[in-house]
Amino acid sequence: MIVTVTLNTALDITYRVRGLRPHASHRITEVTERPGGKGLNVARVLAALGHEVTVTGFAGGTTGDVVREGLTGVPGVSDALMPVAGATRRTIAVVDELTGDTTQLNEPGPTVTAAEWSAFQEAFEDLLSGAAAVALCGSLPPGVPVGAYAGLVRAARTAQVPVLLDTSGEPLRRGLAGRPDLIKPNADELAELTGSHEPLRAAQAARRRGARSVIASLGPEGLLAVTPEGRWRAAPPAHVHGNPTGAGDSAVAGLLSGLVEHLPWPERLARAVALSAATVLAPVAGEFDRTAYEELLGRGVEVTAEAGAA
Amino acid sequence: MIVTVTLNTALDITYRVRGLRPHASHRITEVTERPGGKGLNVARVLAALGHEVTVTGFAGGTTGDVVREGLTGVPGVSDALMPVAGATRRTIAVVDELTGDTTQLNEPGPTVTAAEWSAFQEAFEDLLSGAAAVALCGSLPPGVPVGAYAGLVRAARTAQVPVLLDTSGEPLRRGLAGRPDLIKPNADELAELTGSHEPLRAAQAARRRGARSVIASLGPEGLLAVTPEGRWRAAPPAHVHGNPTGAGDSAVAGLLSGLVEHLPWPERLARAVALSAATVLAPVAGEFDRTAYEELLGRGVEVTAEAGAA
Repeated sequence: MIVTVTLNTALDITYRVRGLRPHASHRITEVTERPGGKGLNVARVLAALGHEVTVTGFAGGTTGDVVREGLTGVPGVSDALMPVAGATRRTIAVVDELTGDTTQLNEPGPTVTAAEWSAFQEAFEDLLSGAAAVALCGSLPPGVPVGAYAGLVRAARTAQVPVLLDTSGEPLRRGLAGRPDLIKPNADELAELTGSHEPLRAAQAARRRGARSVIASLGPEGLLAVTPEGRWRAAPPAHVHGNPTGAGDSAVAGLLSGLVEHLPWPERLARAVALSAATVLAPVAGEFDRTAYEELLGRGVEVTAEAGAA
Repeated sequence: MIVTVTLNTALDITYRVRGLRPHASHRITEVTERPGGKGLNVARVLAALGHEVTVTGFAGGTTGDVVREGLTGVPGVSDALMPVAGATRRTIAVVDELTGDTTQLNEPGPTVTAAEWSAFQEAFEDLLSGAAAVALCGSLPPGVPVGAYAGLVRAARTAQVPVLLDTSGEPLRRGLAGRPDLIKPNADELAELTGSHEPLRAAQAARRRGARSVIASLGPEGLLAVTPEGRWRAAPPAHVHGNPTGAGDSAVAGLLSGLVEHLPWPERLARAVALSAATVLAPVAGEFDRTAYEELLGRGVEVTAEAGAA
């Protein structure tokens, strides 16, 4: 069983409007909603790949109930979200049908009390005993200490469970102190963390700060992996056009599934890139196109070793 | 007891952001939500004035549950909303803290089935037997026939219950066929209905189309009343600055409360204008400032008879 942690779960709402104009009134032509937050997205992709996944983190209020209801229908995903007094946040993506642009409005999330955070940490340690791997994903809700991820990483390492950390900013910087097995920053996050805009140099700097392996996602150019076992670049066959929402979460799912299946690095990376590209290509944001995934995996992803010492 | 009908109830959500820019991502700094839809706003003001109010209309889904929960705490307001399979809509007001501008996003509302609409009509007739007056407020959710208000107006008139219709566009145009006692359009709605941009002329035209009395709201200039008993203008003492959200609903509450208290027209109009101005002045959108209301009522609203035959 793989565990994904989403401390700041969300109900992701998408509104379609014809022409978004500040200070105007808009009729929404279509409303869709689904459980969100990075770890929940990772879990859905892992489950689609045939893995058993347990999701944990916080869920509260009416929005939290809707998130949990939305998870009950997903085969392979078990809900171990912890109830919290505050309300789970909504995120609103306003898609302008005229331009295709998306405007994002993100609620802050519930304020988690010290007692709730403490109870979560205990429950997390219990979950680790049955886990093959764990992913810690996304932003921290208000109230959770900014160094939270370092503690969770240490707990996973103590339990000898491989741990992937996918967050940004200060939570990432502080989380590295726990020495995660894997981080998956994008180029901007890596630059913010290390001060270097050169991905290879920045990835090496991130390893020195505590990450055992760094998989940098370089957008349409694919992934750069800097690991104790070697360095690789993995790129999709051509530029794929579509909606990049969730592409990073699909890459995390690819890396984690490859890890628990003990695949060699090049295969893990190929899988992550293929899943990511197949997510960009999917008509529904955050889903992946299975046919495209299998085609890309079969012939499309080029993985090349990078020169230089690891 | 006064009945207010809100067929398209809403959960009114307000987001505060610093600088709304299309195609950007925004952190919401503050989230507030409250039960909405014109008839619910009218009911809250009526209850604050000491009247017993029963609210009806449709409520469905999780959002409908939140709306109903939000009503339980309001003294004087009884919930007779009818459950519906579809989900009650959300409306989102995005307030830009930098400019003060509000951008509005409105979900369409649940699709009401023929069986649900039929059940509502029966329940509405039952409610009329105990009603001193009824207000029919706001837009129609999908599925409800566009001529719906004409039928509800006729039912109220058959039950000898005075009926105020506060809607716009085609539902207003069609609703007039039922011959409501009172309509309260704003200048734009009146112009759309009659083709005339001259309020007095337009109000007279609306009376010919079926409204017994027309109270036109002219924004900061107050109200113009054209009734079988005479014509009046009622204006606040000076231009009031603030948030006009809900000012029209407060005017409806003023008119209805004055009606059931058998006040003469000038007093009804003075109350409606004072409540409306006190709503613009209130710090919270849709609430009214009681002190301002009492002051305005005591000394501020000027009501003058208009020349010409009624």
